[in-house]
Amino acid sequence: MGIRWKGKGAEAKALADPMSKIVSQLKCSLIEYDSRGLLSGFSVLIEANEEQTGLFNRTCFGRRNITTEKDKQWFQLSMEEAFYLSYMLKCIKVVGEDNCPTNDDELWKYAISKRNNFPNLFKAYSHLRMKNWVVRAGSQYGVDFVAYPHHPTLVYSEYAVLILSVEDDNSNGRLRVWLDFHCTLRLCGSVAKTLLVLHIDKNCSAATSPSCLESCLVEERTVTRWNPEQSRENQTTVQKEPSN
Amino acid sequence: MGIRWKGKGAEAKALADPMSKIVSQLKCSLIEYDSRGLLSGFSVLIEANEEQTGLFNRTCFGRRNITTEKDKQWFQLSMEEAFYLSYMLKCIKVVGEDNCPTNDDELWKYAISKRNNFPNLFKAYSHLRMKNWVVRAGSQYGVDFVAYPHHPTLVYSEYAVLILSVEDDNSNGRLRVWLDFHCTLRLCGSVAKTLLVLHIDKNCSAATSPSCLESCLVEERTVTRWNPEQSRENQTTVQKEPSN
Repeated sequence: MGIRWKGKGAEAKALADPMSKIVSQLKCSLIEYDSRGLLSGFSVLIEANEEQTGLFNRTCFGRRNITTEKDKQWFQLSMEEAFYLSYMLKCIKVVGEDNCPTNDDELWKYAISKRNNFPNLFKAYSHLRMKNWVVRAGSQYGVDFVAYPHHPTLVYSEYAVLILSVEDDNSNGRLRVWLDFHCTLRLCGSVAKTLLVLHIDKNCSAATSPSCLESCLVEERTVTRWNPEQSRENQTTVQKEPSN
Repeated sequence: MGIRWKGKGAEAKALADPMSKIVSQLKCSLIEYDSRGLLSGFSVLIEANEEQTGLFNRTCFGRRNITTEKDKQWFQLSMEEAFYLSYMLKCIKVVGEDNCPTNDDELWKYAISKRNNFPNLFKAYSHLRMKNWVVRAGSQYGVDFVAYPHHPTLVYSEYAVLILSVEDDNSNGRLRVWLDFHCTLRLCGSVAKTLLVLHIDKNCSAATSPSCLESCLVEERTVTRWNPEQSRENQTTVQKEPSN
């Protein structure tokens, strides 16, 4: 499918401002201000100053909550985003209702108690984020995530991401029958995305610590329709056939 | 969604030529010529004279096979179509390799041996055909069938049909997770069809006779996205709210 930029100049803008660099800036700023997120159900609320607001927006972490406070901005992070900033980038602390910071293991167990397949979701999320993809929820396309090469204002999402796991019971039960494959591929085609299946080779939902994820492997597969005509001959070496 | 006719005059054409009437004509013609279909894998080949060719085309049964024979036309019926014509309309006989006609029970067992969920596929197919819907394969939309109010040259298909059964093992495993729902509904929306779920309340795949189907009930459900704005107030009785 290839990268589809949104209008002229978008590509140049993105190249001049690599995602890895902006994420580093966000990380430094959050560490500098000893930022803390408040656990709230399956998401985390975090206060942001003006600089951080810009960086959250540009890196596409969280969604801004509209409040009446003029000087303060609040961002709502998904559990995967919060855990990525806290466990992988070590730039925020997440505090519970008692205002005490939770450690990695506590937050990990809390997340799994709320959603059993959190380890798979997080492994897939962090796998893509670490490769500097911008990752957003994909439920509107019937997938787990969508992945953008850069900020969604500059470029269309390239991949519709489905997570499959070793254990069927813990997987989301997708792509087991041909009709589901047909449906998913047809939808991906109609919204110009490539289906990316991330297969997680280990079930960490019983693990007491996120360190379990380190030994997890992620197998990446893109799924496309096979076009027999296109694949029939190697176009570069084929000799013209006599027409019948 | 409503019926979407293909161009001017299509609706009048369809009304002047009800599907029930053409199917009756096909039935009479097939009985008159004592028509026989040849079992071939999971489909049935049937010879058609000129009149029957027209009726097969207009009723949308089978697909015409291109042969070099000029006077004879051959149609390839799906197993559901063949069983509908043979068991429900009693207008064709299906013969096996030995050229001996199979009876209903034999054909039934043969079909199940080839595809375990044939009873569900057939129940759903005949349920819609008996209500004069034109039913075609739906795999290109990731569903079991698509249903047209009349011939596909006159009207777009209105329903994307998924079959669910009582026993999970015998169902096609669809719509069990929200992401699959999202995917299916989004695709149906983008191709302007309504998702129709036919729930079959009994598993007949172990039955030795198709008479098992008579006690089967089909529950019909259409699935649409809920639009909170649209449903918020009854538009006909609502009083204008003061604007804030």
